[in-house]
Amino acid sequence: SRLYGRATGDDKAPIICLLTALNALKVSGYKLKNNIKFILDGEEEAGSPNLGPCLKKHKDLLKSDVLFMCDGPAYFSGDPTLFFGVRGITSIEITVYGPNTSLHSGHYGNWAPNPGVRLSQLLASMKDKQGKIIVDGFYDTVVPLSATELEAIKEVPGFDDHLKKLYGFAASENPGLSLMETIHKPSLNVNGLRSGWVGEQARTIVPPTATASIDIRLVKGNEPKDMVDKVIAHIEKQGYHVVYDEPDRETRLTYPMLAKVKRSEKGYPASRTSMDLPVSRSAAKTFAGLKGLKPVMIPSLGGSLPIYLFTDALNVPVIGVSIANYDNNQHQPNENIRI
Amino acid sequence: SRLYGRATGDDKAPIICLLTALNALKVSGYKLKNNIKFILDGEEEAGSPNLGPCLKKHKDLLKSDVLFMCDGPAYFSGDPTLFFGVRGITSIEITVYGPNTSLHSGHYGNWAPNPGVRLSQLLASMKDKQGKIIVDGFYDTVVPLSATELEAIKEVPGFDDHLKKLYGFAASENPGLSLMETIHKPSLNVNGLRSGWVGEQARTIVPPTATASIDIRLVKGNEPKDMVDKVIAHIEKQGYHVVYDEPDRETRLTYPMLAKVKRSEKGYPASRTSMDLPVSRSAAKTFAGLKGLKPVMIPSLGGSLPIYLFTDALNVPVIGVSIANYDNNQHQPNENIRI
Repeated sequence: SRLYGRATGDDKAPIICLLTALNALKVSGYKLKNNIKFILDGEEEAGSPNLGPCLKKHKDLLKSDVLFMCDGPAYFSGDPTLFFGVRGITSIEITVYGPNTSLHSGHYGNWAPNPGVRLSQLLASMKDKQGKIIVDGFYDTVVPLSATELEAIKEVPGFDDHLKKLYGFAASENPGLSLMETIHKPSLNVNGLRSGWVGEQARTIVPPTATASIDIRLVKGNEPKDMVDKVIAHIEKQGYHVVYDEPDRETRLTYPMLAKVKRSEKGYPASRTSMDLPVSRSAAKTFAGLKGLKPVMIPSLGGSLPIYLFTDALNVPVIGVSIANYDNNQHQPNENIRI
Repeated sequence: SRLYGRATGDDKAPIICLLTALNALKVSGYKLKNNIKFILDGEEEAGSPNLGPCLKKHKDLLKSDVLFMCDGPAYFSGDPTLFFGVRGITSIEITVYGPNTSLHSGHYGNWAPNPGVRLSQLLASMKDKQGKIIVDGFYDTVVPLSATELEAIKEVPGFDDHLKKLYGFAASENPGLSLMETIHKPSLNVNGLRSGWVGEQARTIVPPTATASIDIRLVKGNEPKDMVDKVIAHIEKQGYHVVYDEPDRETRLTYPMLAKVKRSEKGYPASRTSMDLPVSRSAAKTFAGLKGLKPVMIPSLGGSLPIYLFTDALNVPVIGVSIANYDNNQHQPNENIRI
């Protein structure tokens, strides 16, 4: 059975779990051999603006041997999941321009530049038909996975066919790569498109603008600013003059191809704790010994968490212990937690 | 000075003009040599569903030597404008599919197919970077312009530079063609794009769908159904399985590339009266004699009007006399009529 509600899976569930575990320890009379310290951040979805300064301020108080993090979903198998890293994230919004007002498509169509077609040509130039991102240098700064990490990825049981059926598509974007391989690479995802109107609202016009919202997931080695710079260089390479504010009349009349770029201000880099550290091996061993369960160990989740704040401020290895079910619909309608 | 308001230019202005002209005739005492019959249609923007049957029913009553039509804007010069044709119109809405629900872009991005990228690749394949439509056979059924029509197009004074400045763009979509040449070809115009969200509403998801709304303007010789068929054949040639209803689970799991197509039900063909007919020459001569003005004569407007209804039902040559100013913002905010 499941509970449905905003934030049930991401991220109320871990708080309830921690409190329940604490209570169980208390009731059992078990004597702790180590101190346990708790950090709860209520601003993660807003980019955790206060977490970093707070951690730095209380650096001595929070000194630890290892930090376990309970955000992020468990693996598809439903078994206990350890993860040693997360991807970073940044984003870019691109707007391309047609006429300065919507124009009648009969009188001006195919003469006034069509921003929807321009944007389509631009986005089509960023990814090939096998899902590979063809922005120059996009994969250049990736820190290669270690032998232990590559082995761990192989060991994770594949759920690709199950997920394709569950989510209703016949083939993934990149048929040569498994989901587990894909999330260990940087990504470029078009999460939104807007130009004019469609459906019942459609009008026979040349729209003035077309906008794409893109998120970029980062792996270890990728710097958020550098990855956005590479996308901007790609846009310029396609013939665009790039601006960062709404273009004025003179700019419009000077550059036949004009793109406005809005950079993310909330991006942060990936984080990945080595699976070869003693504390990593110890956590893995404990997990491997859990009776009747098949623990899953993942070098990096596909999602993003601001783990770099902990590693920067506290210089502590971070290991993730997942609580929420994978199909919790986080950030979406019908968010839920399996009980 | 101008009057602003919904339908001021399209299409209240011609009605007031006709009534004013009738009144002037009456006041002047001028004796008419011919009968004048008036047809007013209040449903043009809804595809004129009742005009055709009404014309056919009253065919004998409406028998005439020539029909003058007062819809459609005057030429940019502001001078009296005669037009001998209009483009037809049809449309197609295309939806391509990703997962059956929006998915977290960190966990599934670049693995689950991204509909925004797919749609961009599809639209980019329909038009080259010089604005030429590269859908197979798109220009094949065009009836070539006559020598008189080609000459008329040359005679029309060019306003391209003025319009680029007015509407704020540095170059047209097809730098080799003038606006007047462009509107005498069939067009394919992306008037709307929708996928996920952008701006403040943007979410880090793989959206389930991406939709493009496209209008296709037709010239003499193009059949609405045939032109949409050609676009559908193009979509299939790009590897898509085309459906006409929301695809079911089995269809989704069978076809890696899936597109839903919605055809226009309101399209109609172009219409063009020969400029070599005696009545055309006579109207042109009268116009040419107007003192102190430089009348403009255009083989076809870029816009669409259901003139085929008159030619089909009444078998009468139709000539357009434009009333509204070209910058009347028809179908848009701030519609106006210059007084």
